[in-house]
Amino acid sequence: MTDPGDFDAAWLPDAAFRAVGARRSLVRGGPDLLADTVHRELADACARFGGEAVRGADAGGAGLVLDLTGDNPADEGFTLGRADGVTTVTASGGRGLLYGLFHVVRLGEDAFAGDLPPRTHRPALATRMLDHWDNVAVHPVTGQVERGYAGGSLFWADGEARGDLDRVRAYGRLLAACGINAVAVNNVNVHATEARLLTDRLGDVAAIADVLRPYGIRTHLSVGFATPMLLGGLPTADPLDPAVRAWWAAATARVYEAIGDFGGFVVKADSEGRPGPFAYGRSHADGANMLAAALEPHGGTVHWRAFVYDHRQDWRDRSTDRARAAYDHFTPLDGRFADNVVLQVKHGPMDFQVREPVSPLIGAMPDTRLAVELQVTQEYTGQQRHVCWLGPMWSEVLRFRPAGGTSAGRLADGLVAVSNAGDDRFWTGHPLAQANLYAFGRLAWDPEADPRAVLDEWIALTHPGAPARLAEGLHAILDGSWATYEKYTAPLGVGFMVQPGHHYGPSVDGYEYSPWGTYHFADRDGVGVDRSVATGTGFAGQYAEPWAKLYESPDTCPDELLLFFHHVPYGHVLHSGTTVIQHIYDTHFEGVAEAEEARRVWAGLADLVEPERHARVAERFEEQLRSAREWRDQINSYFLRKSGVPDARGRTVH
Amino acid sequence: MTDPGDFDAAWLPDAAFRAVGARRSLVRGGPDLLADTVHRELADACARFGGEAVRGADAGGAGLVLDLTGDNPADEGFTLGRADGVTTVTASGGRGLLYGLFHVVRLGEDAFAGDLPPRTHRPALATRMLDHWDNVAVHPVTGQVERGYAGGSLFWADGEARGDLDRVRAYGRLLAACGINAVAVNNVNVHATEARLLTDRLGDVAAIADVLRPYGIRTHLSVGFATPMLLGGLPTADPLDPAVRAWWAAATARVYEAIGDFGGFVVKADSEGRPGPFAYGRSHADGANMLAAALEPHGGTVHWRAFVYDHRQDWRDRSTDRARAAYDHFTPLDGRFADNVVLQVKHGPMDFQVREPVSPLIGAMPDTRLAVELQVTQEYTGQQRHVCWLGPMWSEVLRFRPAGGTSAGRLADGLVAVSNAGDDRFWTGHPLAQANLYAFGRLAWDPEADPRAVLDEWIALTHPGAPARLAEGLHAILDGSWATYEKYTAPLGVGFMVQPGHHYGPSVDGYEYSPWGTYHFADRDGVGVDRSVATGTGFAGQYAEPWAKLYESPDTCPDELLLFFHHVPYGHVLHSGTTVIQHIYDTHFEGVAEAEEARRVWAGLADLVEPERHARVAERFEEQLRSAREWRDQINSYFLRKSGVPDARGRTVH
Repeated sequence: MTDPGDFDAAWLPDAAFRAVGARRSLVRGGPDLLADTVHRELADACARFGGEAVRGADAGGAGLVLDLTGDNPADEGFTLGRADGVTTVTASGGRGLLYGLFHVVRLGEDAFAGDLPPRTHRPALATRMLDHWDNVAVHPVTGQVERGYAGGSLFWADGEARGDLDRVRAYGRLLAACGINAVAVNNVNVHATEARLLTDRLGDVAAIADVLRPYGIRTHLSVGFATPMLLGGLPTADPLDPAVRAWWAAATARVYEAIGDFGGFVVKADSEGRPGPFAYGRSHADGANMLAAALEPHGGTVHWRAFVYDHRQDWRDRSTDRARAAYDHFTPLDGRFADNVVLQVKHGPMDFQVREPVSPLIGAMPDTRLAVELQVTQEYTGQQRHVCWLGPMWSEVLRFRPAGGTSAGRLADGLVAVSNAGDDRFWTGHPLAQANLYAFGRLAWDPEADPRAVLDEWIALTHPGAPARLAEGLHAILDGSWATYEKYTAPLGVGFMVQPGHHYGPSVDGYEYSPWGTYHFADRDGVGVDRSVATGTGFAGQYAEPWAKLYESPDTCPDELLLFFHHVPYGHVLHSGTTVIQHIYDTHFEGVAEAEEARRVWAGLADLVEPERHARVAERFEEQLRSAREWRDQINSYFLRKSGVPDARGRTVH
Repeated sequence: MTDPGDFDAAWLPDAAFRAVGARRSLVRGGPDLLADTVHRELADACARFGGEAVRGADAGGAGLVLDLTGDNPADEGFTLGRADGVTTVTASGGRGLLYGLFHVVRLGEDAFAGDLPPRTHRPALATRMLDHWDNVAVHPVTGQVERGYAGGSLFWADGEARGDLDRVRAYGRLLAACGINAVAVNNVNVHATEARLLTDRLGDVAAIADVLRPYGIRTHLSVGFATPMLLGGLPTADPLDPAVRAWWAAATARVYEAIGDFGGFVVKADSEGRPGPFAYGRSHADGANMLAAALEPHGGTVHWRAFVYDHRQDWRDRSTDRARAAYDHFTPLDGRFADNVVLQVKHGPMDFQVREPVSPLIGAMPDTRLAVELQVTQEYTGQQRHVCWLGPMWSEVLRFRPAGGTSAGRLADGLVAVSNAGDDRFWTGHPLAQANLYAFGRLAWDPEADPRAVLDEWIALTHPGAPARLAEGLHAILDGSWATYEKYTAPLGVGFMVQPGHHYGPSVDGYEYSPWGTYHFADRDGVGVDRSVATGTGFAGQYAEPWAKLYESPDTCPDELLLFFHHVPYGHVLHSGTTVIQHIYDTHFEGVAEAEEARRVWAGLADLVEPERHARVAERFEEQLRSAREWRDQINSYFLRKSGVPDARGRTVH
């Protein structure tokens, strides 16, 4: 058994339930599994704070009534109002009721003060999913959790299911409280052991699904395209082969026998060495639709990843541009995917760099369902050793208007992210990285939410009753932390200046002569990738207007994306008025200074934060500072050696 | 049991024994284990080729008499002569007799033609040792064999001794045939499992020693300095602590109970994170002498490695120079080491790069016994995927005269090398890398031997009776292969432009901002490390004259070491008449062309080489060419981007 003390309460500490726990509440309707969850939450809170929780019967004198009026699982909305001293949540489905409860929890005493006109809340995106890149068997290269920075897996350990599911249950509860309704429990790189989650290890998945279901979360599986060959003994995985289709149909039917509300499959195909339909001369629509056909009778969905590119590119070949790949591969297929296929598109055209433009594929396939994929796990943003609050980055992505009209967040059916959680006591390694996990769920619910308001919610829930000084301090540390990280790492939209393989720490040329399609082309005269239509790879032309025109010219391209779209001399003057080379020096010195200031602010909050949490963050700040200085000095030295231009302010560049 | 077909005959194919096997031979003297080995070799050969081998008694009509006249294990010499139709080998010790036999085998029919005046042969170096960097337990980073490129370990597999020792026996026989008399059976980085070879796993070592002993090979162990703490439960490993000394004395005595002729310990201390005497404020003489005291009563030796440097250097710090470290650490200790301590010094001041000057420590400690350490395993010279015949490199090292007088080879007591052999069918991965293993032994016997003659020996033994065209082809491929490898990889003495970690393939800046002390300081104006006394780190001043003066100035420094000793502009004109930058381009194009030519020559030898061997080498050439082109293009592009100087001959630089 997991000791409850083994994991942090995160944004659901007991004290966050004080307002509901001190009252008399009634949960009506059902029978319904999620209404029971709502009741249990209230009963637990009341046991602590002196209220009373009633289920089913009419109860006079209730201050809070949660009314389940139907059994519609598709309707996740709820209506909240208050009149005559009674706060009412009404929902036609169990999930809505649960989300309504957590909304009341967030409001705290405000939910019980004065009248509230009835207002309906409903998630903007139907699917709000976390993908876990967790391996069952420890992989010799990527370990238990690929790109995991928070200990081991929540689900798997050393080749087996963990068995003890208390932590998974607590995780499900945290996810429900920020609105997440789907979890994929294994890595998109499906290795041999993990393939068997679909077959003889299915019981392990069903056990997880049973624990997540009371929190409104459907369980999904990543599957490998070649599984009919690997496990079914078939000579092919051709998606048009009847035997292959029959194998998937039968395998999928068995999954639904074990997990009636199974969510569906996540697929990484023809990507970074994974098998896929290309081997059979079939399109990705053929591949996805085959799985869709197997899932359709049961109500399941295929999340088909658009992360398809040539990862064996020749660095000498300047005509191939990885940034173009997803758009080039998928736009010809628009309208050809089945209704229960969702194309899962990374938010940027490359791979979760600290700064990328929004992928031009988003908005380019009006007849295809879209999920935008984010990365909560901080692969390229400090690996949960650096503080890096990603709410503002995601908000920029979701508010981006691909054709000047509807925002990316409104165009999508789903928001998906790679989870940053593991079996670490604080869930996320860096305790402040909990804010990212929380914000992901809340932005999936409302992609146009103000990230600052989301952060306020997270702070208030995590530290109920704390003085304003704590919130101010956390804002001072977190609000600008993405910008700070960008400053001391990657200038002006350049990416991949990281150590190959593990991706932590700087290596300016680490990927420059690699087959991964990730280049900056720095030479003694300038730096950046010409992706213009006029003289470069043409990537800028994949955008609709106004973006295509804006990105096409260095005169109009935003500074922060200049080197993503253009190769310019070191002396090129930015809109900010400074040169590229001086910008590199300035931002690297500023970034370190800002990280030092954040550490100082955190030190001053020691009296307001529980000691273990404070110590963990303080320890991470030491590593962040060491690493930030290393970034500053390596980047500055590299570009001084190349450009020969000294820092105009005479600071030390080694 | 190992199937004999599992391993190649290398330089001891049956046919190499035709001349001795067709005759009547007599082995006299003993009883002696090695004389028995000699007799068995002859009996086996005679069974194949129709001769007769007699042991002990006088035998009229013998064409070959091997006479053991004493039992002096320290005398490894033998006298060979021929008169009255009888070839005679006389030795006062069993090893000499065995080496005499293999000498006769090398001579073939020439040993039985006409008269030969008696001539005594004796090894120049007393210790001729191979270190195996083999782990017992597979290490998560370095694997079963650290820097091994020939399959698994000969001795260990997956945490256990292999049990089947047939392959080890065959290995011992091969080593005896080239004069090697010592083997260390485990990695100098001694991890937890391997530490126990000294204690409860000692039986595994004894079993290996039993198999190697009949071939005149003494077995050595690498030991960890902190073993008294790890296994003995002591609170310290202080070499002056009486309990520590007593622990080592007792452990060593137990080793000798199991292995009466145990050779001694190999120690890597205070090096790359290994524990050592510095932790206790003691000197390396204190540390080595403690182990020497434990070994001395039993006749054992400590091989104490001088590979001590700061591997956590700050790349910003230009005053620290790793090349200086061994000399700076050890010269103050000259005369303070016990008589049974041998200081084991890498041949260059850095770490087995394709080109380094000879270490200034060699010859700088006249009152300390010296072993020169080479690397037969091709960590930095193509990892047995590239053909790289190292005889000429080693010969340069061994013929180097540190003070203008005695050569390095004559100054040393021993020659030690990291083995390139594993459980690969061809022993060494690349079949042509067998030549390196053979040459190591032969150069340890005679450090002034002509490497070309050694190669002739190896060719003739490995391919008995082959036509001259094969020898010519192999010379064409091998003679210049080190120079070729140098050309397409590292110019002018620059090292470490390799992929970090595994060290295969180019990464010009891979170690440039690392803590390993391995920098080239390339910027837009020039490249190289100023190690002069006048303006640099002073390393050049560690040499005796004439070298100190020669290396001090770029005007006199040999071209091939220029960038090791000096930072010069790309336009600096070499003694060869070309500029540094043009030299980089020229040699990289030449190197690839030479490798292509070598592949062509090998293809033309298909009719003269057994198919499996030919195919293996042919397959390696494909990878060599791919890799060589990658080296050429990355190095050329890197320096074009930095220098801005185009290739004067207009070839393609990407």
